[in-house]
Amino acid sequence: MKNILIIGAGKSSSFLIKYLLEKSDKENLRILIGDISTENADKIINKHKNAKSVVLDIFNTKQRQELIKKTDLVISMLPARFHIEVAKDCILFSKHMVTASYISEEIKALDTAAKDKNLVFMNEVGLDPGIDHMSAMQILDKIRNKGAKILLFESFCGGLVAPESDNNLWNYKFTWNPRNVVLAGQGGAAMFIQEGTYKYIPYHKLFRRTEFLNISDSGKFEAYANRDSLKYRSVYGLDNIPTMYRGTIRKVGFSRAWNIFVQLGMTDDSYTIEDSENMSYRDFVNLFLAYSPSDSVELKLRSYLKIDQDDVMWEKLIELDIFNPKKQIGLKNATPAQMLQKILQDSWTLQEDDKDMIVMQHLFGYEIDGKKHQIESSLTVIGENQTYTAMAKTVGLPVGIAALKILKGEIKTPGVQLPITKEIYEPILKELENYGIKFTEKQVPYLGYNPNHVFG
Amino acid sequence: MKNILIIGAGKSSSFLIKYLLEKSDKENLRILIGDISTENADKIINKHKNAKSVVLDIFNTKQRQELIKKTDLVISMLPARFHIEVAKDCILFSKHMVTASYISEEIKALDTAAKDKNLVFMNEVGLDPGIDHMSAMQILDKIRNKGAKILLFESFCGGLVAPESDNNLWNYKFTWNPRNVVLAGQGGAAMFIQEGTYKYIPYHKLFRRTEFLNISDSGKFEAYANRDSLKYRSVYGLDNIPTMYRGTIRKVGFSRAWNIFVQLGMTDDSYTIEDSENMSYRDFVNLFLAYSPSDSVELKLRSYLKIDQDDVMWEKLIELDIFNPKKQIGLKNATPAQMLQKILQDSWTLQEDDKDMIVMQHLFGYEIDGKKHQIESSLTVIGENQTYTAMAKTVGLPVGIAALKILKGEIKTPGVQLPITKEIYEPILKELENYGIKFTEKQVPYLGYNPNHVFG
Repeated sequence: MKNILIIGAGKSSSFLIKYLLEKSDKENLRILIGDISTENADKIINKHKNAKSVVLDIFNTKQRQELIKKTDLVISMLPARFHIEVAKDCILFSKHMVTASYISEEIKALDTAAKDKNLVFMNEVGLDPGIDHMSAMQILDKIRNKGAKILLFESFCGGLVAPESDNNLWNYKFTWNPRNVVLAGQGGAAMFIQEGTYKYIPYHKLFRRTEFLNISDSGKFEAYANRDSLKYRSVYGLDNIPTMYRGTIRKVGFSRAWNIFVQLGMTDDSYTIEDSENMSYRDFVNLFLAYSPSDSVELKLRSYLKIDQDDVMWEKLIELDIFNPKKQIGLKNATPAQMLQKILQDSWTLQEDDKDMIVMQHLFGYEIDGKKHQIESSLTVIGENQTYTAMAKTVGLPVGIAALKILKGEIKTPGVQLPITKEIYEPILKELENYGIKFTEKQVPYLGYNPNHVFG
Repeated sequence: MKNILIIGAGKSSSFLIKYLLEKSDKENLRILIGDISTENADKIINKHKNAKSVVLDIFNTKQRQELIKKTDLVISMLPARFHIEVAKDCILFSKHMVTASYISEEIKALDTAAKDKNLVFMNEVGLDPGIDHMSAMQILDKIRNKGAKILLFESFCGGLVAPESDNNLWNYKFTWNPRNVVLAGQGGAAMFIQEGTYKYIPYHKLFRRTEFLNISDSGKFEAYANRDSLKYRSVYGLDNIPTMYRGTIRKVGFSRAWNIFVQLGMTDDSYTIEDSENMSYRDFVNLFLAYSPSDSVELKLRSYLKIDQDDVMWEKLIELDIFNPKKQIGLKNATPAQMLQKILQDSWTLQEDDKDMIVMQHLFGYEIDGKKHQIESSLTVIGENQTYTAMAKTVGLPVGIAALKILKGEIKTPGVQLPITKEIYEPILKELENYGIKFTEKQVPYLGYNPNHVFG
C-alpha cells in the first residue's frame, strides 16, 4: 500500500484527484487531501473508499509534520511561496515531493539533501511550466539526436474560453486567477532574441507588439512576449540559438483592446487611489483622463487614445459597462489594478456551464546536412465544465502521473528536478495521450523568424 | 568671530562660497570647506584670507567630528543620503545645520534633540525645494491674511539652457545631473488634483500630458506633472484645495520628442542589456524595434511610432546621431537609461561659455468676499558662466543667507525646519532680490484650472 498526501485542493486539483482515485485500486493507493477547507476536496472524492480529506493549516508545523511523516509522497498544490516548509519536512522525513511550480532558489538549495536521501523532488510538472518543457524537450532531443543544429525555438501557451462558451467581444473570460491576468507582462521589459538580435519590449508597448499564429484546427490567435525568454536558452541546452521567444496566446484583437487599459494606467498595482471606495466605474475611468469642465469621459478617452467611432475596441469598452456612473467600485484603498479587476469580473467570470480551453504551440527551426527544416507542434484541450476544466486537466494530470511513476520507481533520478530528461517526459507524455492531451506535429517550410515572409 | 564649515564643494557651491566670502569681513566669518577633493573649492576661494579648504573624507568619523566640533554652523552640500551622519554630529556637538535637500525620515527624527539643544536644522532651503516653498508661502500667507479661500495652487520649475546658448533642436542641455534628467518622472504615476478631481498619469503618458505656460518676458514653455503633488497640500496648509499641481518646465516641443525614448523603452534603468559594451548607437536603437531581415532601423522606428517625414521630432533624433553604426556605446552591463545618457551627453553637454537658466512660476487662485482672483508669480534667472550658473546661484544663495541669519540669531526657531514660516522666508526673499532673484507678480483674470479657456 502506498500513501499520497495532497496539500492544497483548489480549483486545479480536480483532475489530479480523479486520476489518482481511478488508479487507486490497481496501484493500491491511499490518498489523503489536506486543506484549510475540505469542501472542494470532498466534492471530488465523492466518498471514494481510497481517499480521505483532513482540515490542515499548513502553518501548524506539528500537524503538517505528522501528516507528512505518515505518507510516502507529498504533492503540494499550494501557492508557490508556501512550498518550502513542506519541502523541508519532506527532507526531514525522507519523502518524495511533486509540485507544478517554478523551482525557487530555496527549493533548489535542497538539491544535495534530496540526493543524499535518494528522494525525487519533481517541480514544474504542470502545464506551463510542465507540458511545455516536456513536449519541447521531446522534439528538441529527437532532432538533436539526428545531428541537427537548432536555429529557432518559439513557444506559446494560453488559457482561454472554449469556442462554444465564447460569447463576448473580447473573446476572453477569466479561466484562472484574474489578478494574474490584470498584472500580466508587468515587472520589467520582455526580452528575447531573434535571428541573433536581442529585443526588449517595455510593458507599455507589449500589447502592441503581438504576432499572429495559426493552431491546427483551432484557427488564428495572437501572442504577446513573455517576460524573459532568454533564460530558457540554458534550461533547454540552447545557449547559442539565434531565435528564442516565448509568448502568451490570446484570441485575435484582445491585446489591442487590452492596451487601452495599459495606456490609461489602469493596470498599475503600485499605488492606491484616494477615496477608491466611493468611486463609480465612470469616476475610475476619469481618474486617468485630463480634467475638463464640460467634455464627457467618453469623448476624452476617445480623443486621448485616438479611438475611431467605428472601432470595435470602443464596443469592447461599452460591453464592460465601464462608463456607468451608478455602479460603485466599493473597494477601500484599492490600486488601479484591483479596481479594474472588479469591473472585468462583472463581465468575464465563467458561468456554470462555460468551458475553458488550453492552447499551446511550439515552433522548432533546425538544420541538418546544410538543409533547413521547421516543425510546428500544437495542442488544444477543451474543458468539460467548471470543475473539470482544461486548466485543471493539463496541470493536474502530469502532476498525478509523475507522482505515481515516482512511487513505482519508474522515475527515480534523485534531487530537485524539472521534467526535461527523457526518463521523465517520455512516459508522462505517452500517458497524457490517453486523456486526449496530444500534440499535433507537422513539418512546415523553414521560415526562420520571419513573420511577414519577407526576404531581404 | 563665527566659524562656518561647508561640507561638499561641488558644482552648486560657487555662489554659496562667494556670498559668504563677501560677507566675511563685515560679519567676521571664517569659512572652512571640506571635500574629498579641494580643487573646486580652492578655485572659488582664490586665496581669500577668510577661507580655507581641507581634504575631508566624510566616512572618516574622527576627522569629520573634529572639524564639526570646532565650527559654529555646518552647511552640508553633500548628496542627500549622506546628511544624516553630519546631522548626528551636529546634535552631539551642538551645532546648527543647513542643507538644500528634502527632509528625510532620519533627519526628521532628530527634531526633538535639535529643539532640546536649541539648534536650528534648516533644510529644503535651495531652489526646488527652497525658493519654491518661500515664494509660494509668502503669497499664500498674504492672501490668507486677507481672508481669502485658496482655490488653486500650481507651481512649475525648470533648469534649462539660456536663450543665448540655446543652439540645438531640443532647446535643451544638461545643466544638472544628466542621470536625473534621463530618469525624470519614473517611480510611479504622477498624481495631482484639479477642480476636486484626482488625476493620475502613468509614466509612459507623462510626456504627452504636458501643458503650456507663459512666463513674463521669457515666453512660452511647457510643463509635465511632478510625481506627487498631493503631499504638498498638507505642507502648505491647503488640505482641502480643489486644484494642486506641480510640474517641471521644458521648452515647447521637448516633451513630445522625449516621449520617443520613453515609448521605445530607452529610459528604463531596471535591467542591463546583454553585450551593451560592443553595441553601436544604431544597435542600441534596434534593440527596441521589431526584427526585420531587410528594413532599416530608421524606417522601423518611424513606422512604429508613426513619425511623419516632415516632423521635427525626426530631425531631433538625427541631430543626436542616434542611428550611427560606428559610434560605440562602450559601457559594460549598462541599462538602457545609461546607454541613452551616453548618447545624449555627446550633444547636450554645456560648452565652456554656455549659460544656464532657471525658470519658476506659481499660480494662485482664491476667493475673497465672493469674488475670485488669480495671481501669477514668475522668476527667470540666467547664469553667468559654467562656474557661476543660475542653478548654483538659486541653490547656493538662499543656503548662504539662511546660514548667516541663523548665526546672527535672526532665524532662531529651533528644530528640524523648512522655510515656510514668515520668520524665515521674508528676510531671505528680501535679500535674494539684491542678487536679481526677484519674482514678477501680477494679478490675472481668474480661470481656475481651465487651460483651454473652455466654459461648460
